Amino acid sequence: MFDELKKVVCDANKELHAHGLAPFTWGNVSQVDRNAGVFAIKPSGVPYDDLTPEKMVIVSLEDGKVIEGDYNPSSDTPTHYVLYKEFSELNAVVHTHSVNASAFAQAGRDIPAYGTTHADFSYTAVPCARALTEEEVKTEYELNTGKVIVAHFKENGLETQSTPAVLVRSHAPFVFGKNASDAVHNAAVLEIVAEMAMKTENLKNNVEPIDKYLSDKHYFRKHGKDAYYGQK
Amino acid sequence: MFDELKKVVCDANKELHAHGLAPFTWGNVSQVDRNAGVFAIKPSGVPYDDLTPEKMVIVSLEDGKVIEGDYNPSSDTPTHYVLYKEFSELNAVVHTHSVNASAFAQAGRDIPAYGTTHADFSYTAVPCARALTEEEVKTEYELNTGKVIVAHFKENGLETQSTPAVLVRSHAPFVFGKNASDAVHNAAVLEIVAEMAMKTENLKNNVEPIDKYLSDKHYFRKHGKDAYYGQK
Amino acid sequence: MFDELKKVVCDANKELHAHGLAPFTWGNVSQVDRNAGVFAIKPSGVPYDDLTPEKMVIVSLEDGKVIEGDYNPSSDTPTHYVLYKEFSELNAVVHTHSVNASAFAQAGRDIPAYGTTHADFSYTAVPCARALTEEEVKTEYELNTGKVIVAHFKENGLETQSTPAVLVRSHAPFVFGKNASDAVHNAAVLEIVAEMAMKTENLKNNVEPIDKYLSDKHYFRKHGKDAYYGQK
Amino acid sequence: MFDELKKVVCDANKELHAHGLAPFTWGNVSQVDRNAGVFAIKPSGVPYDDLTPEKMVIVSLEDGKVIEGDYNPSSDTPTHYVLYKEFSELNAVVHTHSVNASAFAQAGRDIPAYGTTHADFSYTAVPCARALTEEEVKTEYELNTGKVIVAHFKENGLETQSTPAVLVRSHAPFVFGKNASDAVHNAAVLEIVAEMAMKTENLKNNVEPIDKYLSDKHYFRKHGKDAYYGQK
Repeated sequence: MFDELKKVVCDANKELHAHGLAPFTWGNVSQVDRNAGVFAIKPSGVPYDDLTPEKMVIVSLEDGKVIEGDYNPSSDTPTHYVLYKEFSELNAVVHTHSVNASAFAQAGRDIPAYGTTHADFSYTAVPCARALTEEEVKTEYELNTGKVIVAHFKENGLETQSTPAVLVRSHAPFVFGKNASDAVHNAAVLEIVAEMAMKTENLKNNVEPIDKYLSDKHYFRKHGKDAYYGQK
Repeated sequence: MFDELKKVVCDANKELHAHGLAPFTWGNVSQVDRNAGVFAIKPSGVPYDDLTPEKMVIVSLEDGKVIEGDYNPSSDTPTHYVLYKEFSELNAVVHTHSVNASAFAQAGRDIPAYGTTHADFSYTAVPCARALTEEEVKTEYELNTGKVIVAHFKENGLETQSTPAVLVRSHAPFVFGKNASDAVHNAAVLEIVAEMAMKTENLKNNVEPIDKYLSDKHYFRKHGKDAYYGQK
Repeated sequence: MFDELKKVVCDANKELHAHGLAPFTWGNVSQVDRNAGVFAIKPSGVPYDDLTPEKMVIVSLEDGKVIEGDYNPSSDTPTHYVLYKEFSELNAVVHTHSVNASAFAQAGRDIPAYGTTHADFSYTAVPCARALTEEEVKTEYELNTGKVIVAHFKENGLETQSTPAVLVRSHAPFVFGKNASDAVHNAAVLEIVAEMAMKTENLKNNVEPIDKYLSDKHYFRKHGKDAYYGQK
Repeated sequence: MFDELKKVVCDANKELHAHGLAPFTWGNVSQVDRNAGVFAIKPSGVPYDDLTPEKMVIVSLEDGKVIEGDYNPSSDTPTHYVLYKEFSELNAVVHTHSVNASAFAQAGRDIPAYGTTHADFSYTAVPCARALTEEEVKTEYELNTGKVIVAHFKENGLETQSTPAVLVRSHAPFVFGKNASDAVHNAAVLEIVAEMAMKTENLKNNVEPIDKYLSDKHYFRKHGKDAYYGQK
């Protein structure tokens, strides 16, 4: 069952590792099948080289419980579950501890949009969500991580297609995509954009964000119905 | 038609990617054939590994329109077109979002010439052109990007042979060369020179640019009729 | 004799080099066999590519003397000896000069715990031990290096399982592990954590360490009897 | 003639490139044969992959003229010539534009000895020589580059065995070694030491250099008659 979904998710997890975005076992990719009411996710703590489609874990969108698989799913599974549950347009989620994006998360800062590389990728700054309370950490930590992300998006009028990444404070990024491979691509772009932003600040104090009209131009050149980047 | 030109441009695009200067589809190389009145350029959004000479797009120097090719040309094609049109000595153009050079562009700063590595490459600082106005962005954005570069060079008495790169503000570099491969080489050198300049500033406040007589010595040791670097 | 121990230690030394943590001959890995009363360690100054299990050196836990092997052991052998002698729970030791961790050692600073990447790895900041006195350097330098580490841990109530790395001031890290391969893994994580901490400070002045309740959550999610990360 | 010398120098040039210390054609290695009164050096501007022993150029120690070879020697040949002429103990010279060491040269700063990684390599800070005057640049630039290095060493009581590298101001490093391969090794170590020093300063204002007694311990543990690092 779910052979194609498992294969896609397995491949994307390996791709994440090949990009250098997830050393050791530090990252996970999932993709949802909304018709089937499930998502597939990496097993917890298994090295990427050992992954096979059969080892992927199938989780129910109903209640977040495992419905197929011989392995424990990623410990971050409840976060993925909440994100799929609350963001009905969301198809794939990636979690990494990539160095530059995580440094912004540790500093508790949004990644400002300083240039067109950022605007090609995200319509907004990459937001940093609030810290979880002690209570939220002690009970259902991973579930609450998802809830804090969702609350941040709803309160700030953000959505996962135009804001394809978020930083969990003192932790690391979660990244969104049209499918597992696209989410991995976005995780790689995020890391480059974070490095570029950090270096931009090193070169100039009080850098201004990119002008809105230039950011819009780049974002809509690549995304949405009037996009003209790439082939039809 | 234009088989040799297409092959040269295809190879240079792959070389750009192999240097790590253009992840995903983020960069493009073109080369002009002035006798034929055309230039060849990368197709838009096509991964480098999938490029073949046949996929290159041939564009007219007359009006910037595609005259041969099955693919849409790079979305930056009108920028290349203006540059070839206005800089009659120019043979090849590269556009990248390489991290260190783009950080200078995002900071809105020229890359100062701090040492001989820079002077071996460029006779001047690498200039950062002015921001495009909202009007310039909203209508014919890519064409106006080229026009702003050209205006910057003309107003400041620069030319593309001795100033082989320019930063488009809040965006990224465009790089020039004697041919497509030379322009790719210059794009790689630019990235190293930008990293070195950034680190030099980290090591010392208010660094002075290289002495003009030392810069001249290095530039003319490698370029021009009295050059004595390399083999005859 | 000790064939398995030698093989494990040889492999871990090669792995250290493959991770880029020990260029040239700059690092060494050892692992203890407490039943046999010995540890195996890399020979001094031998390139990693030339290492074979037979070249490992077997050292007595009794007195730190070589009891088997054709090569001189690592010049840091007396440090490893003291660590095994004084930390009865310790199984493996790695020494590197990895750049980011060594920069903290050169700055004489602990690596603060700024996020969950650190907390997944260590229960505390990575401590920087005091400088050795002139007397301690001039007589039995390597032995005293170990003693200064041990004193730092005892005075500060640290232990090597929950604080798996230490910085020797003006020098570089020593890293601990459940076995040689685990210690190499920890040395690699340390280097990432150090880079992330450095970048976090670049992004924000006076960053606060991670909240204790979040750090505890991550540490105990991966370590100890209630850990639920990974497979059973 | 000089077959062995040419092979050794050719191999070392390729090794320099393989270490990533000399992109494109930006670096050169030479080694002297004092009995024969010659040194062999890389041909100017030839890519490393194209180098063969036959392409190496043999230069006279008498007058710095080419005595064998079909290619122009490195444009830096007169610098190497002066160094061999004035430093009678010197066996091999490497020139690179490696990024971190060149950043110190561009900042006009010595690389301070902040830790044992530096002390294992050099007995002193890595000095930055004074700027060449306009006169010195305009006439016999490369020869004068060598003379300024030599003057700096003599005025400061330095010698090339215990101070195996020097920075030419606004330019880049020259590195010394017991033979061509050892000089390449030193060039690689210099680059790591420079990166570590830069990062140390990022982590702490006004870092103090390493204590002299610790530096001496490390230097003499690896170098000189009482060295005990490595195998006999």
